[in-house]
Amino acid sequence: MAPYMCLDTLRFLSFSVHNVHYLTQYDRYRDYDREAFDMLFDAAKAWADKDFYPYYREMDEQPATFVEGRVRTHPILKSIFQHAGENGWLGQYFDYEDGGMQLPHSVVNGINHILESANNHIPGYLGLTTGAAHLIASFGSEWLKKTYIPPMLAGKWSGTMALTEPQAGSSLSDITTTAYPLEQGIYKLKGQKIFISGGDHEAAENIVHLTLARIEGAPAGTRGISLFVVPKYRPENGEMTDNDVVAVADFQKLGQRGYSTVHLVYGENNGCQGYLVGEMHQGLAYMFQMMNGARIDVGMTAVSTATAAYYASLKYAQERPQGRKILNSGKKDVTSGQTLIIHHPDVRRMLLKQKAIIEGALSLVLECSYHSDMILCAEGDEKEKHKLLLELLTPVAKTYPAEKGRESINEGLQILGGYGYCMDFPLQQYLRDIRIMSIYEGTTGIQSLDLLGRKMTMSEGRTWTLLLDNINQSLDAASTQTSLSDYAHLLRVAVKDTQHALDYLLPYAMKGDFENFLADASIVMDMVSHTIIGHQWLKIALTAHKCLSDVISEFRQSFYQSKITTMKYFFKYELPKVKSCLITIISSDKVTLPDMGADIF
Amino acid sequence: MAPYMCLDTLRFLSFSVHNVHYLTQYDRYRDYDREAFDMLFDAAKAWADKDFYPYYREMDEQPATFVEGRVRTHPILKSIFQHAGENGWLGQYFDYEDGGMQLPHSVVNGINHILESANNHIPGYLGLTTGAAHLIASFGSEWLKKTYIPPMLAGKWSGTMALTEPQAGSSLSDITTTAYPLEQGIYKLKGQKIFISGGDHEAAENIVHLTLARIEGAPAGTRGISLFVVPKYRPENGEMTDNDVVAVADFQKLGQRGYSTVHLVYGENNGCQGYLVGEMHQGLAYMFQMMNGARIDVGMTAVSTATAAYYASLKYAQERPQGRKILNSGKKDVTSGQTLIIHHPDVRRMLLKQKAIIEGALSLVLECSYHSDMILCAEGDEKEKHKLLLELLTPVAKTYPAEKGRESINEGLQILGGYGYCMDFPLQQYLRDIRIMSIYEGTTGIQSLDLLGRKMTMSEGRTWTLLLDNINQSLDAASTQTSLSDYAHLLRVAVKDTQHALDYLLPYAMKGDFENFLADASIVMDMVSHTIIGHQWLKIALTAHKCLSDVISEFRQSFYQSKITTMKYFFKYELPKVKSCLITIISSDKVTLPDMGADIF
Repeated sequence: MAPYMCLDTLRFLSFSVHNVHYLTQYDRYRDYDREAFDMLFDAAKAWADKDFYPYYREMDEQPATFVEGRVRTHPILKSIFQHAGENGWLGQYFDYEDGGMQLPHSVVNGINHILESANNHIPGYLGLTTGAAHLIASFGSEWLKKTYIPPMLAGKWSGTMALTEPQAGSSLSDITTTAYPLEQGIYKLKGQKIFISGGDHEAAENIVHLTLARIEGAPAGTRGISLFVVPKYRPENGEMTDNDVVAVADFQKLGQRGYSTVHLVYGENNGCQGYLVGEMHQGLAYMFQMMNGARIDVGMTAVSTATAAYYASLKYAQERPQGRKILNSGKKDVTSGQTLIIHHPDVRRMLLKQKAIIEGALSLVLECSYHSDMILCAEGDEKEKHKLLLELLTPVAKTYPAEKGRESINEGLQILGGYGYCMDFPLQQYLRDIRIMSIYEGTTGIQSLDLLGRKMTMSEGRTWTLLLDNINQSLDAASTQTSLSDYAHLLRVAVKDTQHALDYLLPYAMKGDFENFLADASIVMDMVSHTIIGHQWLKIALTAHKCLSDVISEFRQSFYQSKITTMKYFFKYELPKVKSCLITIISSDKVTLPDMGADIF
Repeated sequence: MAPYMCLDTLRFLSFSVHNVHYLTQYDRYRDYDREAFDMLFDAAKAWADKDFYPYYREMDEQPATFVEGRVRTHPILKSIFQHAGENGWLGQYFDYEDGGMQLPHSVVNGINHILESANNHIPGYLGLTTGAAHLIASFGSEWLKKTYIPPMLAGKWSGTMALTEPQAGSSLSDITTTAYPLEQGIYKLKGQKIFISGGDHEAAENIVHLTLARIEGAPAGTRGISLFVVPKYRPENGEMTDNDVVAVADFQKLGQRGYSTVHLVYGENNGCQGYLVGEMHQGLAYMFQMMNGARIDVGMTAVSTATAAYYASLKYAQERPQGRKILNSGKKDVTSGQTLIIHHPDVRRMLLKQKAIIEGALSLVLECSYHSDMILCAEGDEKEKHKLLLELLTPVAKTYPAEKGRESINEGLQILGGYGYCMDFPLQQYLRDIRIMSIYEGTTGIQSLDLLGRKMTMSEGRTWTLLLDNINQSLDAASTQTSLSDYAHLLRVAVKDTQHALDYLLPYAMKGDFENFLADASIVMDMVSHTIIGHQWLKIALTAHKCLSDVISEFRQSFYQSKITTMKYFFKYELPKVKSCLITIISSDKVTLPDMGADIF
């Protein structure tokens, strides 16, 4: 089997860089140790090798399709739900009392990385099931918990999150799906939802839609949205009754074609019941728990898709002979044999670019999971610190992997030349698959508004200060190492430039000019992302540097050297983009504002 | 019909910015005037509306396919060849004596822009036919000319360029297709070619493959390559005889699926004859005439594909309501109606980015054609100047549209959100189609080596000096205009930074260290491209500025204003990338060189 991810890198990032196994010091995770985590990674890899990777191309060629009132999906999906249920792969991070394994999110996300690298069409079904069940566990009544969580974690029922409507798109304040009260906690639902991932399929007996709707008479805007459990079949008196929520179409997509994307109609025959989760009008706040988790998941899916593409293009570069080295005369010796393309500097540049993006992004996504875990373990100020850092990093951990992961796969395809463009090679599929990641769960534009307009200024800017404290710790550590101090200096400049851009923009917010404050939010996202990933790489290099001088280390010397080389790549080729972002942001031309008029296009 | 390109912009760039109609002062083009060119554009638009645009999606959904020994293509292609032949659309720029219309390349490329924006799957068939016939016209014997050119220009026979072989890819010195002498000028061919665009189809009676092969016993490398005319059917004694060059497969591709990409086998039954074009061993030099033209053509196809995508995303943004303006309170008024997304700054940014890339790139590609025309019109030093500028600009005019055109379509897809990812909307098709443009006719890596390793240093660097002279003229003109002088300053800094990078790199070449000289050629390409497109935008703004103050001008005031606004966009958001390229190039880390070893990946 061709390699599609690197277990050593996952272990190194999880345990050497982020010290995930230190979590077992806390009461919540005391049943685990490093060895247990390693065994879980190995088991996930074995499962991915057997049931995920071999079906990756097939699921693209035989996409989810709407036929005769239901969505047909690849048959492997059924065995996957069954295996997942039987082996505890669903709800791994749930509390024991909710039927989970109480595993750290960091480890669960490492497992997701393995599964998603093998086949990014499958894990969404499982992740949404887990996320939906977790939402019920967090905010649902005892009855909802008892009725829904066990069959979901057993892999018999799957879950979805149903937010988007045709007329509203990302603008949730405009949703019109309506809930009419029937009796205590039970409502009759009417409306439509589109783009519902896993919204219909044949792999589970029932599908539980966590649905946002507006209770009749609720206030306008997001403050009038409530959350409902809306099953495809509702359990009543020991029977499963059709609940009148019907798939009417499956969107045919550019990629992730094995992952169904469904148009649902609720209550066309007046027979759709929904069960209120928690309080009325609090739906969006509850949903944000799932959405924040889903954003990290999308980041991880993007990283993982790009990781698989990297290993596919690396394998090609290691095997394909073409061209020759340029001699000192400026000519090539055409009588000599061809060289492998991995010896051409431009091919190496494209490989290093991929590696720098995927490993830097993987490190960031794992760090986010670590903050999730620490929120559950720490107390007081420490807990608050992890909360704020998670808030700040989430839009970046969603966006950087989606945007730069796509660029990285684009380089991977380029390495294969004409073959990369052919359907017989997997790069084109990875490129198609990853394209949705900058749209799922809030587009890059929305994540950028969230980052600049909300997260950077949260708690009077304490989020950003906390991040700077963390970065400064790494800078101080790196400054004392001769071989790393130059890179510490480069990152320090990037931080200074980022601060400069923020100092330029914040006064607009102060004086209520939100249009000018936020107009370049996407550029701020690009800038902050590069600074944050630069920090990840400095941490990685610091760790690798330490491991190189240790008497005993887990991996071979060249493994650690490769991390340091990739850090150098990032600092030479990627980090300088911070400078051009700064120039853009502080330019006084305001060409994107609506008052420039409609006929500029 | 939805708009897919802008005739006004094409006319403005052709006649106001590049003064293409001034060419009619020269003897070669004396039969034409501005009005004639306009009529040709109008006729092309009418043809594109009727026979190109309506089949764009169909050709993707019913791709070229290999069935029972031949490649099946969309039926419209046959009428297109017929119409093209009957109406003189093939060989338009040929001399009258070769059966052409002796039109300027600039005008022919404007026509290509119209046709390719309407449907990028079709014009390649026509362009290769023209290019192949032109190669025969330039270097072939009278017999070859008489036999092949008339049926090709009549649209009865089509043409291809057959270079690539499975074991050689872009490394032409390694081709092994062999030509064994039979009699004067006639050879027996044996070998294989892959990735041959238009290599088989059902729309013409015969296909003429301009084929590179090695005459038995020829020297190794590119100095041993000869050029042959190899028809699918050879005319003999008034009959068409099967010439034993057989399609054995059609590559199924990510995009441009209506455009066949064929695997050809020559002489499997010992019956394949080829006719030597020009002298032995000069094949590559001849082929470069076609290849250079093809590189400009690829640039134009990329620009045009991205143009069509821009107009598709613009239309969506003008019609789709979603979200609200942020008020000075930082909140949104949810009781007010939704706004059209074209009023959101981030959507406007994405639209302006597309517009800045496509119009800047279109201007550059048209300028290249203008140099081609002036090479035919001017004499002595002036002719040499246009030759050198064309040499320098060709790799940029191929690469910038391919690479940035792709980024621009990516933004276009993003504007549609989830709908952009769906097969029902055209953005995903444009994105798939354009992806090949950075691979066709020499990858971006190869174009970058050509730019830095050959073109920048050609004629002792005179190419670059000539370009700088041109840029300086524009800078001087803009510096005297109050409203443009700031932008002149920004471009001056970009030129200085580009020079700085070159001054850093050139000493490596002087001391024979070509590996270090060329390792970052792709970054140099990115940097030089942005500087050159910045120059195009300054010229566009200068022209628009002048038109605004003219008493009578061709277009409405807001049209010229929009060009100036788009120039400002380019200078704020795109040109600053020159700075990050400079930082990368002058960094002392050499992480991409092969001596870093194989296990860094």
